[in-house]
Formats: sequence, structure tokens, C-alpha cells
Amino acid sequence: MDLKSTLRQIPGFPKPGITFIDITTLINKPDAFEWTVNELYKPYEGQKIDKVVCIESRGFIFGAPLALRLGAGMVIVRKPNKLPADTYSYTYELEYGQDSVEIHKDAIGEGERVVVVDDLLATGGTVDATMKLLKNFDCQVEGISFVVELTFLKGRDKLKPIPVHSLVTFDSE
Amino acid sequence: MDLKSTLRQIPGFPKPGITFIDITTLINKPDAFEWTVNELYKPYEGQKIDKVVCIESRGFIFGAPLALRLGAGMVIVRKPNKLPADTYSYTYELEYGQDSVEIHKDAIGEGERVVVVDDLLATGGTVDATMKLLKNFDCQVEGISFVVELTFLKGRDKLKPIPVHSLVTFDSE
Repeated sequence: MDLKSTLRQIPGFPKPGITFIDITTLINKPDAFEWTVNELYKPYEGQKIDKVVCIESRGFIFGAPLALRLGAGMVIVRKPNKLPADTYSYTYELEYGQDSVEIHKDAIGEGERVVVVDDLLATGGTVDATMKLLKNFDCQVEGISFVVELTFLKGRDKLKPIPVHSLVTFDSE
Repeated sequence: MDLKSTLRQIPGFPKPGITFIDITTLINKPDAFEWTVNELYKPYEGQKIDKVVCIESRGFIFGAPLALRLGAGMVIVRKPNKLPADTYSYTYELEYGQDSVEIHKDAIGEGERVVVVDDLLATGGTVDATMKLLKNFDCQVEGISFVVELTFLKGRDKLKPIPVHSLVTFDSE
């Protein structure tokens, strides 16, 4: 399937100089959405995965069906003050200011095998922060999966040596 | 399945006097998550549903697998300035202040049959606002589904005459 053609590119969103890759046009089409989840599943087929860690909030859209397909539990990583029980938190630097991500302390058990999912890999700041959160657990990250990867931003380099999978790449702005 | 036992109740979150119903402990258990999606699906089994409208952000967790199960497209309703293309917006009153929800103008086609999903029905403010958003489309809402319903808040009354389905009810605070 030509998945790229189901994505909508929106220049100037959320600010000038950025072209936003909109996945709402993909999930609006049942065959494209189904195909996407199948493709996200393939690298882990036959593996025992215990938890799928999904990054707020578009990561939930793809991570929830992937968790069900893998027979794994779903774990959510959220912005501060959204998760109600005891959390680990990690604060990271943005171009201007800071941001934080949180995960429930009881989200992942000892020795569990984990997959991380988000819709899009850009500079990799949020997913790298998620990897830092996961260091609080005695778990093994088997892979990190994205629907879209902006390869020219080299976010993948931050995530070595974990295997990174993406379905659609954009090589330039 | 005793789904209620998989939910975690957190008194005093997000503020004193409120008991938060935490679904992260449900989705963490693959069998409970799978069972939940199956039960959400049942009222619509055999019906032709075109779109599943999912309310940010916990609605994405349950709505995405439901859309796939129904062979429907997924539509997301979000807080302001998150959706990148042209949107309809609806502003509603909260106890203190206002809030808004948005939907892409091209999210739903003429004559389409729609299901609305969120994790929890409390006073019904957000889902009622979502129903107002849907009045911009020539679509038919076949049902509104929740995992949890706080029946003592009577949110269901706001949604008449659309059929409302919920899997777990709490009758008092």
C-alpha cells in the first residue's frame, strides 16, 4: 500500500518553517489503518512481548491495536499531572524551555519485554525521554516503532542500539 | 469478567472531593483489555459503521481498536490547536471557565453512520460538546460507548435519545 499518499502534509503548522505530517487522513481510511497496524506488528511477530509503551497522545492510536495484536498490556507515557498514581518523571530540554514525561511506577514488571510506539519520529526528544523513563524498570526494550520517520532530523541516532522500525520516511523538509 | 476489579480508584485526584477512576490498570492486563474491546463492539456487531469518533485522549485507547474491529475509519476529537487542518470548534462551559473541542471538517462524509467513544462518562460535558460538533455533519450517530459510567452524575440524560452503552458503572462517589 502507498501509505505515504494517505498522509496529509500541512506547511506552517504548528509554526512557520515546520511541515506537519497529519496522520488523521490515514486513520480515517479503514484499509490504511488496518494495513498500518499489520506492518507495525510484523517485526515482533512470534516474539513474546509483555508491554507496549505508547507515547501521548497519537501513540495511543497505533499502540493500542498493536498491544492487542501482540497479546501484550498497554502502558501510557503522558505529560505531567495526567497520570493519577505514583509516577517516574523525566524532564528534557526543548529548543525553548523544558518538557517532562511520566509513567506509572507499577506499569512494567521485572524482566518484561517491551516495545515503544509513537506516530512520528522527528528529532527524537520525546522518545529518548521515554527511554530514560524505562531505565527505572528492569525491562528489555525489543524495539521502537513509528508510522512516520523524518530521517533528515536523525532522531534514530539518539536511540541506538535499540532497533527502530518506521513505515514511511520523509528525507527532506 | 469482573472488569471493575481491574480499575484503580484514586481519591483526591485531580483535586479534593473527586475520586479518579484509573483505566491504566485495565489496559495493562491483556485479557482485560481484549475483553473490553469485545464488549464495546457487541452493540454494533453486524451494523455498518463508517466512523468511530474518539475523544482525546483516553478515548483513543479504546476507540482505535473498536474502529479496526468494525472496519470503520477513526476520527479524533481534540482540544484546541492540536488538529492541523480546517476544523469545526465548539466551546462549552465548565464549573470555572470554558473549554473547547475540535474536529477536522473533512473527518466525516455525507450520510455516514457514526459511533462515539470515550473512556468515562461523568457529567457528560465533553461528550455533549462532541455531539454538538457532529451536528456540523450530515451523519447519523448510532451510539455512544464508554468503558466506565458514573451514573450518579447523570451524564446520560444529556445524550438522549442516542443509545448510550457502558461496561462498568459506579453508583456513588
